[in-house]
Amino acid sequence: MPEDEHPSAPPSLRQRRRAVATQEIVRAAELHIAEHGSAALSLRAVARSLGMSVQALYHYFPDRNALVTVLIAKAYEDLATAVQTAADTTPPDAPDPSVPRFVIAAEGYRQWAVAHPERFQLLYGTPLRSYAAPVGGPTTRAMQQMSAIFQRVLFGDFTTEQLAAADTLALSPPFLAHLEQLSPDGLAALPPRATALLLSGWGHMHGLVVLEVFGHTSFLGGHQAEIFHLAMRDLVTDIHRRIPGGHGNGPG
Amino acid sequence: MPEDEHPSAPPSLRQRRRAVATQEIVRAAELHIAEHGSAALSLRAVARSLGMSVQALYHYFPDRNALVTVLIAKAYEDLATAVQTAADTTPPDAPDPSVPRFVIAAEGYRQWAVAHPERFQLLYGTPLRSYAAPVGGPTTRAMQQMSAIFQRVLFGDFTTEQLAAADTLALSPPFLAHLEQLSPDGLAALPPRATALLLSGWGHMHGLVVLEVFGHTSFLGGHQAEIFHLAMRDLVTDIHRRIPGGHGNGPG
Repeated sequence: MPEDEHPSAPPSLRQRRRAVATQEIVRAAELHIAEHGSAALSLRAVARSLGMSVQALYHYFPDRNALVTVLIAKAYEDLATAVQTAADTTPPDAPDPSVPRFVIAAEGYRQWAVAHPERFQLLYGTPLRSYAAPVGGPTTRAMQQMSAIFQRVLFGDFTTEQLAAADTLALSPPFLAHLEQLSPDGLAALPPRATALLLSGWGHMHGLVVLEVFGHTSFLGGHQAEIFHLAMRDLVTDIHRRIPGGHGNGPG
Repeated sequence: MPEDEHPSAPPSLRQRRRAVATQEIVRAAELHIAEHGSAALSLRAVARSLGMSVQALYHYFPDRNALVTVLIAKAYEDLATAVQTAADTTPPDAPDPSVPRFVIAAEGYRQWAVAHPERFQLLYGTPLRSYAAPVGGPTTRAMQQMSAIFQRVLFGDFTTEQLAAADTLALSPPFLAHLEQLSPDGLAALPPRATALLLSGWGHMHGLVVLEVFGHTSFLGGHQAEIFHLAMRDLVTDIHRRIPGGHGNGPG
């Protein structure tokens, strides 16, 4: 939403009104998703819940996909902020200083997902029909931000040389060539073996959260946080053990 | 669907006709989901695609949830069969006999999901609104079947004593008490530390597959099978390394 065409000038009354209205629409859409699921989201339903005509809503969002893009970008940003806040927790607030920072960041990811299941579903559930996120848009940036946080908390104490020598299967030459073409701000900044370990760890963390949020581990009762904590501690130990100089608890 | 009330007697013409019609309805529903997504599934839409009246369809499925339960149970069964078939692959067909059987079974899971994305979504995507699987029903049985296969290929070479001594965090007393109450056919048959490792491994395997099938790792191009293979080999090595007598490649 380009609300501010002259960033140096203070926003006009019209711009401020537009920003307030846009926020109200996004909030109404989030409530609608929480109640009816993202598959049921339509501009018509959101307009109805606000007592607006759908024609008035078109003034702010030309179609459903434009609204979905804003909702997804906002959810990614909120999730990335939750992870960042958790990763930045300093000792007085951290319950146990011996818990690796990666585990605390991963717990921030899980806690946001459990607290906002319908928004987590919008990001990671069944893809919405006839929707594709704009390439290189806000969702890509939020993903890169989250990736950077996890890279830092998982690999921050190791040198590039240590990461390059990680003990895992060698990647095939075509895969190495593909990784080299990726954005230099993202995964391409890591040695390929560290990229492989990071992707594997992402799947591990995400898989436990998505199973929990979508109800597949409900047989564990109230103990899902405990399994997650245990698995993430083992993940850090196992990945660090694969890096020369790491002994399962950070570099030696 | 109790199609056969007298298992010893051959099915009557009426029963055979009913079975054929039920199969046709299920097939039409699967096609509808493949095209329009599971959120759009309705008895009306399925009836229309078969040229039937919705009243005629009610004769076979009293409501949408009854149809969804059959679709989910069939998808779980097909997925479990794919995993079982992969796990049972014998050396002449297995591409590399040094690849652990767990990895081959996990690759069966991934390949089924990639080949049937819409059915995988029905099982593991955003839960359908106003649908809850019958407790202890066919979906529970299929989950237990799959769990038993993965238990066998991951832990089959270890004794209960070795599994009980696995090197991972101790579970809390309330969690241990909860695990003891679970069905003795399922996870409760394993020592608690092995249960924790199995759940962690399930999340790891599932997470990578769900990220791929839902499009979140498309930036890896055609190399997602390679990352999955690498991650699953590391998973087996890391879990076996935590079990006394295991040295990362099965028991020593």
